[in-house]
Amino acid sequence: MTRPLNSADFDDDKLHEECGVFGVFGHEEAAALTALGLHALQHRGQEACGIVTHDGDSFYSKRALGLVDSTFGDAATIERLKGYTAIGHNRYATTGEGNMRNIQPFYADLSSGGFSVAHNGNLTNAHILRSELVSKGAIFQSTSDTEVILHLLALSPKKTVQERLIDALGRIEGAYSLVAIAQDQLIGVRDPYGIRPLALGKLETASGEAYTLASETCAFDIIGAEHVRDVQPGEMITIGKDGIKSDFPFSRDKSRFCIFEYVYFARPDSRMEGKSVYEMRKNIGVELAKEAPCPGADVVIPVPDSGVPSAIGYAQGSGLPFELGIIRNHYVGRTFIEPSDKIRHLGVRLKHNANRAFIEGKSIILVDDSIVRGTTSRKIVEMMRNAGAREVHMRISSPPTAHSCFYGIDTPSTEELLAHKMNVEKIARYIGADSLAYISTDGLYRAMGETGRNNDKPQYCDACFTGDYPVDLKDHENNWTGIKVTRLQERSGKTGGAKG
Amino acid sequence: MTRPLNSADFDDDKLHEECGVFGVFGHEEAAALTALGLHALQHRGQEACGIVTHDGDSFYSKRALGLVDSTFGDAATIERLKGYTAIGHNRYATTGEGNMRNIQPFYADLSSGGFSVAHNGNLTNAHILRSELVSKGAIFQSTSDTEVILHLLALSPKKTVQERLIDALGRIEGAYSLVAIAQDQLIGVRDPYGIRPLALGKLETASGEAYTLASETCAFDIIGAEHVRDVQPGEMITIGKDGIKSDFPFSRDKSRFCIFEYVYFARPDSRMEGKSVYEMRKNIGVELAKEAPCPGADVVIPVPDSGVPSAIGYAQGSGLPFELGIIRNHYVGRTFIEPSDKIRHLGVRLKHNANRAFIEGKSIILVDDSIVRGTTSRKIVEMMRNAGAREVHMRISSPPTAHSCFYGIDTPSTEELLAHKMNVEKIARYIGADSLAYISTDGLYRAMGETGRNNDKPQYCDACFTGDYPVDLKDHENNWTGIKVTRLQERSGKTGGAKG
Amino acid sequence: MTRPLNSADFDDDKLHEECGVFGVFGHEEAAALTALGLHALQHRGQEACGIVTHDGDSFYSKRALGLVDSTFGDAATIERLKGYTAIGHNRYATTGEGNMRNIQPFYADLSSGGFSVAHNGNLTNAHILRSELVSKGAIFQSTSDTEVILHLLALSPKKTVQERLIDALGRIEGAYSLVAIAQDQLIGVRDPYGIRPLALGKLETASGEAYTLASETCAFDIIGAEHVRDVQPGEMITIGKDGIKSDFPFSRDKSRFCIFEYVYFARPDSRMEGKSVYEMRKNIGVELAKEAPCPGADVVIPVPDSGVPSAIGYAQGSGLPFELGIIRNHYVGRTFIEPSDKIRHLGVRLKHNANRAFIEGKSIILVDDSIVRGTTSRKIVEMMRNAGAREVHMRISSPPTAHSCFYGIDTPSTEELLAHKMNVEKIARYIGADSLAYISTDGLYRAMGETGRNNDKPQYCDACFTGDYPVDLKDHENNWTGIKVTRLQERSGKTGGAKG
Amino acid sequence: MTRPLNSADFDDDKLHEECGVFGVFGHEEAAALTALGLHALQHRGQEACGIVTHDGDSFYSKRALGLVDSTFGDAATIERLKGYTAIGHNRYATTGEGNMRNIQPFYADLSSGGFSVAHNGNLTNAHILRSELVSKGAIFQSTSDTEVILHLLALSPKKTVQERLIDALGRIEGAYSLVAIAQDQLIGVRDPYGIRPLALGKLETASGEAYTLASETCAFDIIGAEHVRDVQPGEMITIGKDGIKSDFPFSRDKSRFCIFEYVYFARPDSRMEGKSVYEMRKNIGVELAKEAPCPGADVVIPVPDSGVPSAIGYAQGSGLPFELGIIRNHYVGRTFIEPSDKIRHLGVRLKHNANRAFIEGKSIILVDDSIVRGTTSRKIVEMMRNAGAREVHMRISSPPTAHSCFYGIDTPSTEELLAHKMNVEKIARYIGADSLAYISTDGLYRAMGETGRNNDKPQYCDACFTGDYPVDLKDHENNWTGIKVTRLQERSGKTGGAKG
Repeated sequence: MTRPLNSADFDDDKLHEECGVFGVFGHEEAAALTALGLHALQHRGQEACGIVTHDGDSFYSKRALGLVDSTFGDAATIERLKGYTAIGHNRYATTGEGNMRNIQPFYADLSSGGFSVAHNGNLTNAHILRSELVSKGAIFQSTSDTEVILHLLALSPKKTVQERLIDALGRIEGAYSLVAIAQDQLIGVRDPYGIRPLALGKLETASGEAYTLASETCAFDIIGAEHVRDVQPGEMITIGKDGIKSDFPFSRDKSRFCIFEYVYFARPDSRMEGKSVYEMRKNIGVELAKEAPCPGADVVIPVPDSGVPSAIGYAQGSGLPFELGIIRNHYVGRTFIEPSDKIRHLGVRLKHNANRAFIEGKSIILVDDSIVRGTTSRKIVEMMRNAGAREVHMRISSPPTAHSCFYGIDTPSTEELLAHKMNVEKIARYIGADSLAYISTDGLYRAMGETGRNNDKPQYCDACFTGDYPVDLKDHENNWTGIKVTRLQERSGKTGGAKG
Repeated sequence: MTRPLNSADFDDDKLHEECGVFGVFGHEEAAALTALGLHALQHRGQEACGIVTHDGDSFYSKRALGLVDSTFGDAATIERLKGYTAIGHNRYATTGEGNMRNIQPFYADLSSGGFSVAHNGNLTNAHILRSELVSKGAIFQSTSDTEVILHLLALSPKKTVQERLIDALGRIEGAYSLVAIAQDQLIGVRDPYGIRPLALGKLETASGEAYTLASETCAFDIIGAEHVRDVQPGEMITIGKDGIKSDFPFSRDKSRFCIFEYVYFARPDSRMEGKSVYEMRKNIGVELAKEAPCPGADVVIPVPDSGVPSAIGYAQGSGLPFELGIIRNHYVGRTFIEPSDKIRHLGVRLKHNANRAFIEGKSIILVDDSIVRGTTSRKIVEMMRNAGAREVHMRISSPPTAHSCFYGIDTPSTEELLAHKMNVEKIARYIGADSLAYISTDGLYRAMGETGRNNDKPQYCDACFTGDYPVDLKDHENNWTGIKVTRLQERSGKTGGAKG
Repeated sequence: MTRPLNSADFDDDKLHEECGVFGVFGHEEAAALTALGLHALQHRGQEACGIVTHDGDSFYSKRALGLVDSTFGDAATIERLKGYTAIGHNRYATTGEGNMRNIQPFYADLSSGGFSVAHNGNLTNAHILRSELVSKGAIFQSTSDTEVILHLLALSPKKTVQERLIDALGRIEGAYSLVAIAQDQLIGVRDPYGIRPLALGKLETASGEAYTLASETCAFDIIGAEHVRDVQPGEMITIGKDGIKSDFPFSRDKSRFCIFEYVYFARPDSRMEGKSVYEMRKNIGVELAKEAPCPGADVVIPVPDSGVPSAIGYAQGSGLPFELGIIRNHYVGRTFIEPSDKIRHLGVRLKHNANRAFIEGKSIILVDDSIVRGTTSRKIVEMMRNAGAREVHMRISSPPTAHSCFYGIDTPSTEELLAHKMNVEKIARYIGADSLAYISTDGLYRAMGETGRNNDKPQYCDACFTGDYPVDLKDHENNWTGIKVTRLQERSGKTGGAKG
Repeated sequence: MTRPLNSADFDDDKLHEECGVFGVFGHEEAAALTALGLHALQHRGQEACGIVTHDGDSFYSKRALGLVDSTFGDAATIERLKGYTAIGHNRYATTGEGNMRNIQPFYADLSSGGFSVAHNGNLTNAHILRSELVSKGAIFQSTSDTEVILHLLALSPKKTVQERLIDALGRIEGAYSLVAIAQDQLIGVRDPYGIRPLALGKLETASGEAYTLASETCAFDIIGAEHVRDVQPGEMITIGKDGIKSDFPFSRDKSRFCIFEYVYFARPDSRMEGKSVYEMRKNIGVELAKEAPCPGADVVIPVPDSGVPSAIGYAQGSGLPFELGIIRNHYVGRTFIEPSDKIRHLGVRLKHNANRAFIEGKSIILVDDSIVRGTTSRKIVEMMRNAGAREVHMRISSPPTAHSCFYGIDTPSTEELLAHKMNVEKIARYIGADSLAYISTDGLYRAMGETGRNNDKPQYCDACFTGDYPVDLKDHENNWTGIKVTRLQERSGKTGGAKG
């Protein structure tokens, strides 16, 4: 018997960014620019996407499951989304089947007028706040954290939307970067630790300047916008007809930007906090070659595609040749037949194939960015051996991933993380490698240009490696109290918390 | 040039019921029974449908645009809707393109637990209440009246859902019949005037008795349920594991059941308020033959399909033969090419054709139930003449429709109603008939078994004929104040108020 | 467990016409007219439809599964089908799942130019001819009889398409009415017995006259065309720029038009062979009331919808009142959940419901047009008894259907026909009726205006009642020899012979 | 105004392989293996795909537009395709909208039994043969060359399918590799010049050995089959229950395998004619670094993804660092909004983005495999300059593409080829590069391991570079005579010759 296979389950053993956001103010083609921006940010979320626009009078919305180009690829859809202000959102699949009601941006008619918001991040006290709000009569339509912000805003006694938003954000805890439209303004806010990214860009128009906000600078490149600067931790930027205003309404601590954005999440052509992501990845590879050399090996082989920059770095650092020893099929869709028992032993490789000519008889160094559950690494090592590799050495361009993320990244529970259960030696045996090395935490910080991790005041959020969580976890899934949320099960028979 | 034609626009000149509701408690196949019940009630709304079920623990929901059999026709969908309690809703198309967020039943997580409701009717003070609620921080997700009830409920300080519901309904005005699920109970309520119908049925099960609520008794017949009685005006019925409870929480006036349900809306095989709909229609035909005979005519021809019962009555009353002089194409879908100019003059008839053999050279009496804008009547008279009719006499089994309905029926604005603009003589000329007669209001009441209309205390709501509205219209669309609702335009670029 | 139910299986116990054809020459809107014509002929086939047009230079084609309005309802499709000549075809579902390759019209590039044909009927020597053709190197793409004609034409040594067509038709046996486009002409042919219908119509255009061919005259009415005359048995009509030409290339016998077209297949508003179908049906009802009166009965009730005209006739003939005692749900789609065991005993009625008010306590006469397997009749009788009927008498407006049709009608095998297995008395018991009567064959002929059946030279094809087949059955399914046709199974895993 | 954009038009300036074929004999999971094989060959054709299987008795078929995983990704489809023998085909989009009737494998019921064939290549005398066949009465259903083979087979007077196939192939000219099923055998044939590839593989099964044929060896790797050898030019391989038989029925010349398979078409992990494709590409890069060094340049940047292997070679050959200076968006679908005029000048980059950190201020060497029309090269050079490149040098790993291919590759007409219109210097100016160099023809042959091109007996087909066509072009599109093929236009209003 055969059954459908989600090839993502089969092959992908990565942490996943849960969202990308984009906003633009002051451009006649706001919806088209937002569609392009979301397209550039597609790697941050592939389950669903949405755009809300505003023409100074009405709001216009389109939200759907699926990729940006299938939802916003036709001119008619874009033309219906009128206005010079727009925000958009990409969402990562957090549940087996998507729920329309969790697709952002969200919208509400407040007494102060229409308000729309899109959010990247995760609130750590969302469940507590939700319980409180429901007991006061609030009706939730989604299971998303973002709706908590909306209700706090709706119930705020303050007058302006900015005051209400500050009021609302003052009550929440966690990591967030959000873009919003209200009262003919585009608003961008980044949490006080600056855990999730948000950048500000500028675009010349016939009639002056348009401003744009995006999770990554690659979204500026696609529309030809200039990267002005990053929104700062704890900053609220308000863009309106009178220009840009910057506020810092929240008390500020040392920033703790997510270091995993450099390791894997961000697109290599993005710049974050003044650094080229590609360059950081290469640096890690160079550092890794120093920390964990592999004498006697013949060739450096990246695990495609995310391992390529650090493999180039490793090759340059070690002086060994860099070769594409694993070839990727560019046409892998989301589902395919699972091999039946009769053909499973044949070792089906839907996504990758060994480039045997460069493997056979060689001692190879595989470079990958991370190991989460280890399932894919194990298959790849086996594929290399089947293709005739004499020795297989694995080098990982991040420290062992031993702790779950609660700040907007989709991670397995801590119990499922391979590095939580085994030490490096055991992991090497589990995946079948002749040797295995991870970069050290200090090595990672050195690749970032630091002298090492400042353990008193860490320069980055590295909780997934160190367990050092900058924001309190009082409300994570296993630890919240309050009234029971009876869940409405729509379509899939499954629901789960949708994070921004 | 040709363009798509909505054949409903082309051919249908009827008022339309806006919704049908169904509920069942205590049956293992609750979702399947509800799908069947909604199928039997499909004539009350074809745009969208939804079912919410409850298994004592969770709620399950499926709502979609389209007919019941396309949404709920497959076993997998039904099986996902677990539980022994279910409510369902059919919705009539009130806007050009449907909006998913207005599809009922609605659901909310209240502090008292999950609550789901489906509603047939229209609230006349909905806009005032909505403004109030928004200014208090309520966030509306739909443009439907029904959501007002939900928010009133959420904000009620009372404890039990019944108390909260009474609290909420005490604030609303208008016509409504609603079914709801809360705290493991099925609740049915009918407004104090009993304007919209709601009936109670019973079904034997292996383990005892299940109860069911429905807009019409034809929904009981399809599942083999027994019609116990109608829910009474102002009654709240609560069905739970301990049986049925009846309350009358609202002050009661004389009931005013919608007389148009007998004329056109209801299925002829339904019984309402103790009367057979088909029999009432035939009675009207008999009465009409007395009031408006047509000496010298050869044959009675129904305008299919709704004119058939009263045409049979007219034929029996007049002693003239009844013949199918107009043949209906059973395969008319919702869209078809509009004839281009080159073929328009050919007189395209997508839906109906004259049965020439029985028309040619004859003096015919056409019997129809109502004339709204007159466009279809005009075409049918012309079709009869083209088929060789010597004389065409039109008889209408309702009084002239001269006033809009605000109690849950989709009517054109009063200005568009032909009978508002013209007297009977002019209408006859407009539609091209040799003679035209409507039944009188008293005649209509006589057909119902009354001696005539009691003008002091009318026995029915007949506002569409008489303008005598039982419930105050302070908040109908042209007459409400309060904060501006900035409308989010989703998909269609059009929104409008969705009524239950 | 529930599983999808094809409601047609559940409810319909009828013979089915297998195809409708339409053609037009000389009109700028040829494709639009053909779409409308096919729409009017939709009752003759609902599985698939197709149109081929010709603009004097190229041919254009669109064929699809589904109803005419879903395939041809949009302007873009119609506009792509250029030209002033068009033919179209509706096909009845003969297999469980449709096969695109059997959808007509068929097209071939012949050495004499493009040729397209659509066909209503069935060839009785198709298998023999197919074997011969394959052994000569012909490659068949479909399992349809019609393709045999195409190959005979392609291999004919004659020069003109007319000569080739005569050559081809001279080799085939069976019942057929076909329309074709070739060499800038529209061609219509009817088999020598005239078993299947084909009518000629005329349409005024800005620049002169357009001609049209159709299976039934209702297809002329929808486009405002005038019915000129029927194509005669054995006639080949050629319509070109120089007008109409009529030939009788085949030897002619007495015509034997299918009498079942009057009984059930044709739309009641069509005229066939100079007779109104509706009138013939009423006449049968009147005759049936004479032959098989029902003393003591209270009311005549049609089995909707096909039983209505003969029920009206029966009511008029008997002086009993005619009432709609069975109400049909107008929204029955093609699939619905099959009731699970738990609710099956409730007696689910998806399509029909008893109008209890007119049934209860009465002795009723049900009038239907035919009984094929008896399954539906049985359910309807039971439904009447459950609604309280005191007595149920069944009257059938055709003689017992005891023989399969091989001339283009979808019939069960003779073994499955109830009237083949039982006499009338047994059938009455099987369906549970208090009495049952069929019209006699002579009565049926009398209703047609004859003095009775001329057994030497029958005036109609009535083989399904009498077993008197006008065309030899040497090649029907159980009786053909020749090479084995290895069947390619596409999609459904099922194939069967597709008839025109 | 915006309009849909086919991103392929926007970005891709490549020649395209037109088909991939796959076959397997003797495996219970024949359909599943074929689906996997086609998936591995997806790069050879993305428009449509099909599989035909045989179980010794019946044939089963599924053909559809779209990618392999969307058509064959579900278990139910695979399970319907029964049997132990299967052939499959991927097709490249040769027309704007696909035509179902051209999707392979083709099937015919011949007098010798069922026959199915799938074909990669192009016949140069197809039109002449088609005209002849039509004049003899053959009816063509597609516009594909492959159907010519089918008709020649059907009309062959020979007895066995092998004899008939030899008879048919003896009449055709051109390049072809085909797989077929007939008489319980899998047949593979390669044209006498061996222009298109075809390889033989072997697979262990529980009960013995299964054999498989595929365009490329990567299709063996995905199912774990072993590559036995390539089918030889002019060889016919017959695989049946008695094992493998090899015949060489055609006179043989020196083979002329398509050298462009090494340059671009084949997947880098395939082996062809004993050579690793990836290795050949790297060799070309090394050779190119020798032939056309770039003194003073800083970095070697591949044009992704096809330029990567030769860029690695160039970097190794030149000692310069290899960097990913262009980042590819992995989520590019087939359509997206075309930028309106207002945003076009922003330089939208849907598919690629410059990795500015590695471009800015540098002198870069871009390595690509070919330039066809030059449109993409021009944009990429501009993108590099916008990202701050100081100098942009382009190196191409094939000689100038100056001649169309008529052997199964989709090329623009010769007139549209940039290298046909301009010399290298002009092309450099046109694309805006500071320098441009192509590898020489002899250099290309050296990379293949030859000492250079043997101009008397060239070792490869290199007609696209040299214009030296091994097979006569008497019948290419501008040069055929015979009867006019009146084309039936289905759906798209466009047709064109479909090549295998």
